[in-house]
Amino acid sequence: MTSIGIIGSEGRMGVALAAAISEAGQRSCGVDKGGNVAKVAAAADVLVDFSSPGALEATLDACVEAKRPIVIGTTGLEERHHYLIDDAAKDIAVLQTGNTSLGVTLLSHLVREAASRLDPEWDIEILEMHHRNKVDAPSGTALLLGEAAAAGRGVELSKCSERGRDGVTGARGHGKIGFASLRGGTVAGDHDVIFAGPEEMITLSHRAENRMIFARGAVKAALWLIHQKPGRYTMPQVLGLS
Amino acid sequence: MTSIGIIGSEGRMGVALAAAISEAGQRSCGVDKGGNVAKVAAAADVLVDFSSPGALEATLDACVEAKRPIVIGTTGLEERHHYLIDDAAKDIAVLQTGNTSLGVTLLSHLVREAASRLDPEWDIEILEMHHRNKVDAPSGTALLLGEAAAAGRGVELSKCSERGRDGVTGARGHGKIGFASLRGGTVAGDHDVIFAGPEEMITLSHRAENRMIFARGAVKAALWLIHQKPGRYTMPQVLGLS
Amino acid sequence: MTSIGIIGSEGRMGVALAAAISEAGQRSCGVDKGGNVAKVAAAADVLVDFSSPGALEATLDACVEAKRPIVIGTTGLEERHHYLIDDAAKDIAVLQTGNTSLGVTLLSHLVREAASRLDPEWDIEILEMHHRNKVDAPSGTALLLGEAAAAGRGVELSKCSERGRDGVTGARGHGKIGFASLRGGTVAGDHDVIFAGPEEMITLSHRAENRMIFARGAVKAALWLIHQKPGRYTMPQVLGLS
Amino acid sequence: MTSIGIIGSEGRMGVALAAAISEAGQRSCGVDKGGNVAKVAAAADVLVDFSSPGALEATLDACVEAKRPIVIGTTGLEERHHYLIDDAAKDIAVLQTGNTSLGVTLLSHLVREAASRLDPEWDIEILEMHHRNKVDAPSGTALLLGEAAAAGRGVELSKCSERGRDGVTGARGHGKIGFASLRGGTVAGDHDVIFAGPEEMITLSHRAENRMIFARGAVKAALWLIHQKPGRYTMPQVLGLS
Repeated sequence: MTSIGIIGSEGRMGVALAAAISEAGQRSCGVDKGGNVAKVAAAADVLVDFSSPGALEATLDACVEAKRPIVIGTTGLEERHHYLIDDAAKDIAVLQTGNTSLGVTLLSHLVREAASRLDPEWDIEILEMHHRNKVDAPSGTALLLGEAAAAGRGVELSKCSERGRDGVTGARGHGKIGFASLRGGTVAGDHDVIFAGPEEMITLSHRAENRMIFARGAVKAALWLIHQKPGRYTMPQVLGLS
Repeated sequence: MTSIGIIGSEGRMGVALAAAISEAGQRSCGVDKGGNVAKVAAAADVLVDFSSPGALEATLDACVEAKRPIVIGTTGLEERHHYLIDDAAKDIAVLQTGNTSLGVTLLSHLVREAASRLDPEWDIEILEMHHRNKVDAPSGTALLLGEAAAAGRGVELSKCSERGRDGVTGARGHGKIGFASLRGGTVAGDHDVIFAGPEEMITLSHRAENRMIFARGAVKAALWLIHQKPGRYTMPQVLGLS
Repeated sequence: MTSIGIIGSEGRMGVALAAAISEAGQRSCGVDKGGNVAKVAAAADVLVDFSSPGALEATLDACVEAKRPIVIGTTGLEERHHYLIDDAAKDIAVLQTGNTSLGVTLLSHLVREAASRLDPEWDIEILEMHHRNKVDAPSGTALLLGEAAAAGRGVELSKCSERGRDGVTGARGHGKIGFASLRGGTVAGDHDVIFAGPEEMITLSHRAENRMIFARGAVKAALWLIHQKPGRYTMPQVLGLS
Repeated sequence: MTSIGIIGSEGRMGVALAAAISEAGQRSCGVDKGGNVAKVAAAADVLVDFSSPGALEATLDACVEAKRPIVIGTTGLEERHHYLIDDAAKDIAVLQTGNTSLGVTLLSHLVREAASRLDPEWDIEILEMHHRNKVDAPSGTALLLGEAAAAGRGVELSKCSERGRDGVTGARGHGKIGFASLRGGTVAGDHDVIFAGPEEMITLSHRAENRMIFARGAVKAALWLIHQKPGRYTMPQVLGLS
């Protein structure tokens, strides 16, 4: 039996992770704000973190110290967090992703394929809807899908994303990838990637009914990550998609 | 036979209006940039304007001078344009609207009804998608639907709208009405009004296949407006909905 | 504290009802296949039944005998079941409905309003999707929405419904109300009512995230029904919509 | 300049084809009911047929006689029509397809990929909506997408399709591919392929704004087909997708 350590065990994703770990027949231990991360890292075979960017540095230090792999599903990461992850990945296996569900992982594969096949006169737009308590926009998953579209087209997302449209925007920029965010109710997570061409439109969508799908995917990734060498990994690798 | 004057006759809506006027068995005349608006106002029984905010003052002056009613479907109007319209409406009948289609007019009626029935824990979001050449966001129709939702809830849209979400936004504000805009391809106009409640969601949507529906509705409104006294009118009145 | 009796207490809706009753601060008792319905009817202040049509007659007899009101959410009822309900409603208050959620109840109100405003050249189609284990099609809720559309148009649904399209169907019948059913996964219940007009389309939709919304609505209806005289009632009455 | 012969030149697709041929800088000739197909086959470099199954045999005979390739977009074909096509393909190049649009061709490629990656506990459903005058259901495009899904899963569509659900259907069959058809208004063609898994759902959609996209794709295919040897071809080959 594998022991999976949960960073942020009392949050909503922490509770879902504990349920998914139990469902998978494994053992969980956890730590929340103010707790001893080093102790949990030492006790677990692998860690899963869906907490907050602020806690990431201490968590990574503990993992490196204990030589434990970690799955990071925290959203709202900035460039400096990615540097920390790259550094840690020299010593341990790290899988960082904006979305751990099987469906979204496949969707991003399809988005990349579609973007590589359609010429740039097909405009790409990414729409997401989440519950009213989500604090960042666009969602990590929307950005992940945007990266997939940009990769398919052979461009860098940071150079072509168009966000927060409001007011007199002018016509849409050629080759841009647009983002829009809806917030409301208890929606677990809807994502649409729209390819709008001349008089026709392709839309590739994912709908999550609840957060258990993220917890299950994270547990699957954690169990896979135990067997990997130090380095940085992605969800498509877990599913053999790349 | 009624003569309907088209302001901006060479634009895409101008061409559609000419077709809709002919379809309705009426006669059209038109003017475009640099043309003589006063002459067209004098020659027509009623005017229809889908051009640009910049031309509105001169157009209204010409209508008042010639005592001709006018349907205004121009989007991107600011507060000062509405003052101009209020002023003109002392002398002539004016119908200003963000959307002249029958379907959107009914939709806004349904949105108002739904907003008045649901308590404010149901979050309201308004999504629109238009072709890549649209220069303003949100669309006039999205704002019109937002006004309907706010009216149903007994609040002012200007005090509760949430637009252009991007970055660390914090949790959704209680009672807010959110807007998001997609741009791409040749989409004539899609609108969704979403009421997201606890574990359920109602969505009221409209899809325009092409801009002829706006032209037809504007012609219907123009023919109705001829028989009204000076004042400011709305599309629901044309359809007997209020 | 009110005691609410659950018919079919071990089924999925039975479990959800027990949770919703507890959430509402009330007390529940229940009976399943082979149990003593008369005993539960006597012990409870009001009953809720989401079980199967086959058990309905015995359940109604027990309610009439014990003079207890009942909320019936069972789907797949046939004409003879409605006769049984009409009979029982001479002695007790009965609320029978294809859907107990607040959102669907409001949606059906909006559908009726839209259908009454649009002329019959707007084709009405009703689409539903449910999880793979649902055994009847269209769903009770789809039929309820069809009834609302037919009522708005002043026609009888039984005379204009078009179901199970397959093969060479010929052109769509004028004035028909069409139904289509999708089945798959774990979908709790999606419904779209589409009004398709000339080059534009209005869609009124509801999405249930899980079955708790039906349980909560049923409990709300049960608590309301206790205070009503014998007769047959509907969900819109619970919400003051008619 | 290439001369493209249109079978059914006076129908709605015939008119769209003439426009698309002209848009592409090529020359068209045409024939309608009662006309001389052999003469048009002889005069054209390649033929395009969107007419009716009843005329197919005579059209193929004329093409074989004149040694002209042909693009067949006619829907409602039966098994015997496919035998006729296979026969003709021994002598001439024939491309038969349920949908000639670029977008649908790419979509079917993505559907096949998704179906091959997801295990069969993900239920596949195909939904289509077309204008009120369409006489067959499901649409040729829906069937084409169903074939793509079946191919991805390594099964035969004829052995697993589930159509025209109505009444007491029982639970969804394991491994089935379901179809549902909506009809109404002037909808040019909407298609959704839904993969419904445990608590999550992927949907791959296409929306046609008008029939010009089919005409343009057919012209593109015709110009490509001129350079091919006798045999039977598909749209993905035109686009280099297989």
